[in-house]
Amino acid sequence: MYKINENYLKLPGSYLFSTIGKKVGEYKTANPDKDIISLGIGDVTLALAPVVIQALHGAVDEMANAETFKGYAPDLGYEFLRSAIAKNDYKARGVDIDIDEIFISDGAKSDSGNIGDIFSNDNKIAVCDPVYPVYVDTNAMAGRTGDYVESTGKWSNVVYMPCTAETNFAPEIPKETPDIIYLCFPNNPTGSTITKTELQKWVDYALESGAIIIYDAAYEAYISEEDVPHSIYECEGAKKCAIEIRSFSKNAGFTGTRLGFTVIPKDIKSDGTMLNSLWARRHGTKFNGAPYIIQKAGAAIYSEEGKKQTKDMVAYYMNNAKMICEELKNAGYNVSGGINAPYIWLKTPDNMTSWEFFDRLLENANVVGTPGSGFGPSGEGYFRLTAFGSYENTKKALERIKNL
Amino acid sequence: MYKINENYLKLPGSYLFSTIGKKVGEYKTANPDKDIISLGIGDVTLALAPVVIQALHGAVDEMANAETFKGYAPDLGYEFLRSAIAKNDYKARGVDIDIDEIFISDGAKSDSGNIGDIFSNDNKIAVCDPVYPVYVDTNAMAGRTGDYVESTGKWSNVVYMPCTAETNFAPEIPKETPDIIYLCFPNNPTGSTITKTELQKWVDYALESGAIIIYDAAYEAYISEEDVPHSIYECEGAKKCAIEIRSFSKNAGFTGTRLGFTVIPKDIKSDGTMLNSLWARRHGTKFNGAPYIIQKAGAAIYSEEGKKQTKDMVAYYMNNAKMICEELKNAGYNVSGGINAPYIWLKTPDNMTSWEFFDRLLENANVVGTPGSGFGPSGEGYFRLTAFGSYENTKKALERIKNL
Repeated sequence: MYKINENYLKLPGSYLFSTIGKKVGEYKTANPDKDIISLGIGDVTLALAPVVIQALHGAVDEMANAETFKGYAPDLGYEFLRSAIAKNDYKARGVDIDIDEIFISDGAKSDSGNIGDIFSNDNKIAVCDPVYPVYVDTNAMAGRTGDYVESTGKWSNVVYMPCTAETNFAPEIPKETPDIIYLCFPNNPTGSTITKTELQKWVDYALESGAIIIYDAAYEAYISEEDVPHSIYECEGAKKCAIEIRSFSKNAGFTGTRLGFTVIPKDIKSDGTMLNSLWARRHGTKFNGAPYIIQKAGAAIYSEEGKKQTKDMVAYYMNNAKMICEELKNAGYNVSGGINAPYIWLKTPDNMTSWEFFDRLLENANVVGTPGSGFGPSGEGYFRLTAFGSYENTKKALERIKNL
Repeated sequence: MYKINENYLKLPGSYLFSTIGKKVGEYKTANPDKDIISLGIGDVTLALAPVVIQALHGAVDEMANAETFKGYAPDLGYEFLRSAIAKNDYKARGVDIDIDEIFISDGAKSDSGNIGDIFSNDNKIAVCDPVYPVYVDTNAMAGRTGDYVESTGKWSNVVYMPCTAETNFAPEIPKETPDIIYLCFPNNPTGSTITKTELQKWVDYALESGAIIIYDAAYEAYISEEDVPHSIYECEGAKKCAIEIRSFSKNAGFTGTRLGFTVIPKDIKSDGTMLNSLWARRHGTKFNGAPYIIQKAGAAIYSEEGKKQTKDMVAYYMNNAKMICEELKNAGYNVSGGINAPYIWLKTPDNMTSWEFFDRLLENANVVGTPGSGFGPSGEGYFRLTAFGSYENTKKALERIKNL
């Protein structure tokens, strides 16, 4: 008699964004004439950059001809893409990453979920609170998080690192030593960042305690301040203790195009075993590569023209972010984020809970945001807005929020 | 101190096709002037069908315009694709599959590896021997297979179902009752099939013993005989005990384009929990959808023109299969498969081991095939050739093999 993975039954409710999608869908069905603006899920709205479109068409044409047709991709991804990444994302910042340390994937969400495969189930994880739900949920599925305690909104075997106004939305070194530490900067959902000096403390702590850091740098393209690191490998010793996950979703609008990568330096070893080899094995056995045409599209953003075009996209969204911050501040909201990240994190007014504010915003302003409590118990009383809407919609949404 | 998943260390060698790739690469480096023909890995060589190319270009153009741009896809995949699948792959064969029972993915390899996530680690699996390595390797990674025993080439906690000339390359109901049964028909690597009556016996056995069947139907497009089922759901009761995995790789040449799907009927329940819900949760949490443009490409093969074009591709490869079978038989080889599948399974001559024959073929004929022992201990003494080469190369390869 087969048995299911009972860890799944411990998961409370559904995946956050599925719940929001359902709520919005129900509201739309009941109010078909309402013009709903979503500043909720972190999905982009601008079209793909012209260089990307051109690369896609070009690659499709290659697939139309047996001479240039591409079948199964190399396990780690095409070298043209891994070279471009090594050169532009790392070498250009003074970081040496070998192309065999880069694994192309179908996105940062898959990678941050699947990376758990190469670790034993009896590791204890530490996460920021609030946090991108995928880290905790996927560890819960693996049985690493203990039990979910309804009353606290916490898992019994997870180290939570509160990131609230009191900590300036940055985590503090936890009292209890974890084995795996998830960090995400610029942060989703709070939009906060930490300086290179602060990040170095985490690297030092990991090296000292034997922990590994899983560093989600999906939003690095949004960094505008000088002393904020784009990669954890800018910190000394990080190549011995940190895995970095990157995405093409937010810098180049690939949310529906799907491309990302994970860096596992060969220096990370556990009892002599390279984690790089474990991930290579997983990658080769449970994944069959990102589509050739998508890898070509990804490589296009590293051309001079591609850099300019994607930079313009980021600037467009950051202009929205600035407008959201300013308008909300003017309206009396308590706001953070939005400077090095496309996320604005606000304190809910009138002591409302996150979901109460969600409902109020949906029903009275027809604007969709994300309840802070969906990201963890310390997110209660906060709310996330994204800068990924169009300028016009964002402006309209802000008018409505101001008139709430 | 973090701990790795030590199950990975139990895996013998590397993934079969990575090993072959390495061997061939080394031979090429040492013999740069040799013209090597690969009939090894099951990778296609024909260009994508014109309807697919047209759909890709069209979808790329949609991504170029903010009005028609697509971000994150629906969790289960786009409805246009799931509807086309439900109608053409199932309804047309008299099988009712709801579109919410269909999960679009980036390919059958990912799905057949990841499906283990929703099952407890203390299930016992049964596999055909020989078998597609992904089933066993991914279960080994999860810790379900016990230890690898070098002397037998078997895992200590796996039920092996030998498929050799003696069993007509079909598995027999095992003596020891397994929890999860992997079946793949048309079979990779042997190219064998079983009739609907024979498959019904497996469904009945699963229902009776409380086992679940994971049915890999990636090669169904190659079925030419009437009484061979295209889907396990053609059997009565299968919707209560079988998960079916399908691919666009072999019927439409998507090996480098990446698209597949998994069907989990809502009737499959364990203690009242629908496996469909568990997989939906995994899909929504650890995966972010196949690219929109690829899903559009997949839908194109269900148009009238698309059906014709992909049927022609299959016919092209099956013409190769027929030629391989005939020529090898004429040359005195003992051959099976190749009638309902693009794989030809041959007995190695002169009592050579599979790897000995691999080396002989590579070095003396410059032809790459796949050693049967790579698929399991009962594959020893056998060898797999694929029909996925070009007609010209396949013909040339056969000339060389005949002159060995």
